[in-house]
Amino acid sequence: MYSIDLNSDLGESYGNYRIGNDDEVLKYITSANIACGYHAGDHNVMMKTVKKAKELGVGVGAHPGFPDLSGFGRREIRMSPEEIYNMMIYQIGALLGVANSQKVSVQHVKPHGALYNMASKNKEMAMAIAKAVKDLDKELVLFALAGSELYKAGVEHGLKVAQEVFADRTYQPDGTLTSRLQPNAIIHDLDFAVERVIRMVKEGKVRAVNGEDIDIQADTICVHGDEPQALSFVKTLREKLKQEKIMIKNFGVSSNV
Amino acid sequence: MYSIDLNSDLGESYGNYRIGNDDEVLKYITSANIACGYHAGDHNVMMKTVKKAKELGVGVGAHPGFPDLSGFGRREIRMSPEEIYNMMIYQIGALLGVANSQKVSVQHVKPHGALYNMASKNKEMAMAIAKAVKDLDKELVLFALAGSELYKAGVEHGLKVAQEVFADRTYQPDGTLTSRLQPNAIIHDLDFAVERVIRMVKEGKVRAVNGEDIDIQADTICVHGDEPQALSFVKTLREKLKQEKIMIKNFGVSSNV
Amino acid sequence: MYSIDLNSDLGESYGNYRIGNDDEVLKYITSANIACGYHAGDHNVMMKTVKKAKELGVGVGAHPGFPDLSGFGRREIRMSPEEIYNMMIYQIGALLGVANSQKVSVQHVKPHGALYNMASKNKEMAMAIAKAVKDLDKELVLFALAGSELYKAGVEHGLKVAQEVFADRTYQPDGTLTSRLQPNAIIHDLDFAVERVIRMVKEGKVRAVNGEDIDIQADTICVHGDEPQALSFVKTLREKLKQEKIMIKNFGVSSNV
Amino acid sequence: MYSIDLNSDLGESYGNYRIGNDDEVLKYITSANIACGYHAGDHNVMMKTVKKAKELGVGVGAHPGFPDLSGFGRREIRMSPEEIYNMMIYQIGALLGVANSQKVSVQHVKPHGALYNMASKNKEMAMAIAKAVKDLDKELVLFALAGSELYKAGVEHGLKVAQEVFADRTYQPDGTLTSRLQPNAIIHDLDFAVERVIRMVKEGKVRAVNGEDIDIQADTICVHGDEPQALSFVKTLREKLKQEKIMIKNFGVSSNV
Repeated sequence: MYSIDLNSDLGESYGNYRIGNDDEVLKYITSANIACGYHAGDHNVMMKTVKKAKELGVGVGAHPGFPDLSGFGRREIRMSPEEIYNMMIYQIGALLGVANSQKVSVQHVKPHGALYNMASKNKEMAMAIAKAVKDLDKELVLFALAGSELYKAGVEHGLKVAQEVFADRTYQPDGTLTSRLQPNAIIHDLDFAVERVIRMVKEGKVRAVNGEDIDIQADTICVHGDEPQALSFVKTLREKLKQEKIMIKNFGVSSNV
Repeated sequence: MYSIDLNSDLGESYGNYRIGNDDEVLKYITSANIACGYHAGDHNVMMKTVKKAKELGVGVGAHPGFPDLSGFGRREIRMSPEEIYNMMIYQIGALLGVANSQKVSVQHVKPHGALYNMASKNKEMAMAIAKAVKDLDKELVLFALAGSELYKAGVEHGLKVAQEVFADRTYQPDGTLTSRLQPNAIIHDLDFAVERVIRMVKEGKVRAVNGEDIDIQADTICVHGDEPQALSFVKTLREKLKQEKIMIKNFGVSSNV
Repeated sequence: MYSIDLNSDLGESYGNYRIGNDDEVLKYITSANIACGYHAGDHNVMMKTVKKAKELGVGVGAHPGFPDLSGFGRREIRMSPEEIYNMMIYQIGALLGVANSQKVSVQHVKPHGALYNMASKNKEMAMAIAKAVKDLDKELVLFALAGSELYKAGVEHGLKVAQEVFADRTYQPDGTLTSRLQPNAIIHDLDFAVERVIRMVKEGKVRAVNGEDIDIQADTICVHGDEPQALSFVKTLREKLKQEKIMIKNFGVSSNV
Repeated sequence: MYSIDLNSDLGESYGNYRIGNDDEVLKYITSANIACGYHAGDHNVMMKTVKKAKELGVGVGAHPGFPDLSGFGRREIRMSPEEIYNMMIYQIGALLGVANSQKVSVQHVKPHGALYNMASKNKEMAMAIAKAVKDLDKELVLFALAGSELYKAGVEHGLKVAQEVFADRTYQPDGTLTSRLQPNAIIHDLDFAVERVIRMVKEGKVRAVNGEDIDIQADTICVHGDEPQALSFVKTLREKLKQEKIMIKNFGVSSNV
């Protein structure tokens, strides 16, 4: 039987600032990537989000990013692999603390924004991230762009790696995402997006921008919930996945088990 | 046989900024309070300090403070007990992450600066701190001002609490430290300071500023090492403690065991 | 002829975080208090807000606060008068820079949140703030709680001071605002609130919570715009002021003149 | 008669952290580049440094950098030209505020670290920086790497530009500095370094790493003072410049005139 995990970035509010629609999104996903206070989130938001995820049985994950609140972790910052490692340890450690204080197990780790993108292509960074995850808890699932350097680094470190696909993005023949700077980067037709997801899950294939079919493994899909349309997409996706008998579930570490 | 622990605040450097004389101080103490990135320290400094403490067999502790790098955690910030709890969990969690990544056990938790002072007198804050320590790991030793609200809160939560005394400070009849704003707050005569410590350890007594002897339990002594004189005090203190057959040791969780 | 200024706190967004309804509020006010990057706001938000205020002819003011983004400047932080002075200079200087780069004059300065509240009661802080304003530009109008220590400090430094009143708050017999912790602190009946404002402007009187009339001078009213109800209050207030022939205008330094 | 300015980066302490040897360095330089609170420095340090510079008659300049205290402004951060402009305005504005409050004129602006390096090569960034300086005060002198894009952008905006040379660095045939990653980037022989400076000032030439002489204009020399050797170099340089009848002076806006 086919199965797929739905993940979303949550807990990105900060102090007096509210962002996202977490309470609503949590109803439709199976894995929550919780910001760890560097690019977004703070100790109060983390605690609240972990509690809410536990209540709804959603898998809890750390979502570490660059220390850049003003840039929301979307700006590239060059760091040595040693610093990447230390930065990952700190942030995942903080989330482990929050989760453990509530008797919640942490299921996974997914780097955020520029860190995720850089680690998808840069082997040194990817290895530093994978090592940090392994050194903290080798049972943690690493979420990585399907086929990326981060995926490979996770495998090399003996980690369980969930390959992540994007429903609303197009792919290059080499399996990388089309840059957002290209006009054809985003898929706006939601039915078509859903159809592509189904095929990635069932056939392990996706059509690249040059018309060629490429191999792709879809273990988890990134969904957004901060806009009305995004939420409606998630609902449609869930319905269609059910029709296709594709089970929606995470990686066995539900937060409330 | 009498015994005493010597603790010091370490790992307070930040980015390009260096503060303290950690490598030297670590040779003379048994417990290291490591800043957790809020009032001082960062992920790199924490990692380096944990590794060094491990190497020298010094007990590792979290030293959480207010989120106030520019004020070095010495300014009072009013927070709800809920936020105090969350803030403690985050910082201790981060240090647990750093320590665990290096297979180092964390021995203790000691709040920093204004947080320590406020929690010594404010029961609500003290209870929030003690609960955070307990919820993360009930084996952690809480370092608290001898006889303070924080000490009581730790006991109430079933924690092991190490009562902390200060060699270079005078005491009020009620067991609190004389405010630094008072002219007689600091003891400048180092021999006299050492003598007082010996008496606190052996007799459980200290002479208050009004000439009266009061009861005090000395489990750990806070020492500094950022100035030449401070370091020389630590050396003198160690020598004298040995002469008096007072064992210098921490609470059984050496970082390298 | 009677006149009154309507001021509002704006430019409180930060990086990727949006807060407030600035574009709408700016249509109804005459003075904009623009956050300066310490408790809220950033260089991009400041620039955008200054440009928009200029476009609409709204007076531009600096709205400096404590360096506490996570607490939104609402937490008391103890600082020396020297540091208060330096902190004011830095923030007002930054806003002067932003405004001057767009050929906009800065009209006023209004401290934010905990800084405003503390300076209302603490003479030393109030004097430090007034001196900072004067040392930067003695033509700047200082906004201060009517009758407060900050008001007095402004007068003492020879500044023009605009006494600020609050439409939706009750007053104590001594002219201070009733603490928000009291059940009768807030006025929920908007018609009654408007009526009180009219009386403050025309008669210089307001009824305190004990039923006694007290003297109050109303030069500027603080209005909010972040909630639908708040915006509707501003519109009602403007209408009523017009009916009463009370001119709505700022202190002569319109940003686009 | 030949003349040259000696500049140094100062005011880089932060909160409880001390860095540099400002009081000593200020005695030997003619222009002080004062950090503006983004990559280093804070409102207290800025105030103190401006006052000290005024006392010693040293020209005061803004030294803006990336908002990256933990990286000391040495890490590249990609920003849009609009944000670069806003960030410059904010920081220079803040320093103008501090200086003006003490009746000190600001003489110049020199970007810091990664910002300086990126703007030396990137025309868009350079233009944004030059425009910010011009929009704040067209009399400000822009300090730029000799022959760089930043130099050109300053000229294009009609600014006075001081071309900066480095005594202890080697040059490529195209006039750029040899990357620090190259073994021959740094000149360790201080006498040779001094000799090169004299030649740059008097002949407008420097020998590039390939043995070829290239044209260079030396208006200001960057000197350091944070290490004993550095300070001794400054003293030697000053002596030698005097022997060669090269006047040591800044750009006519002494802070205490």
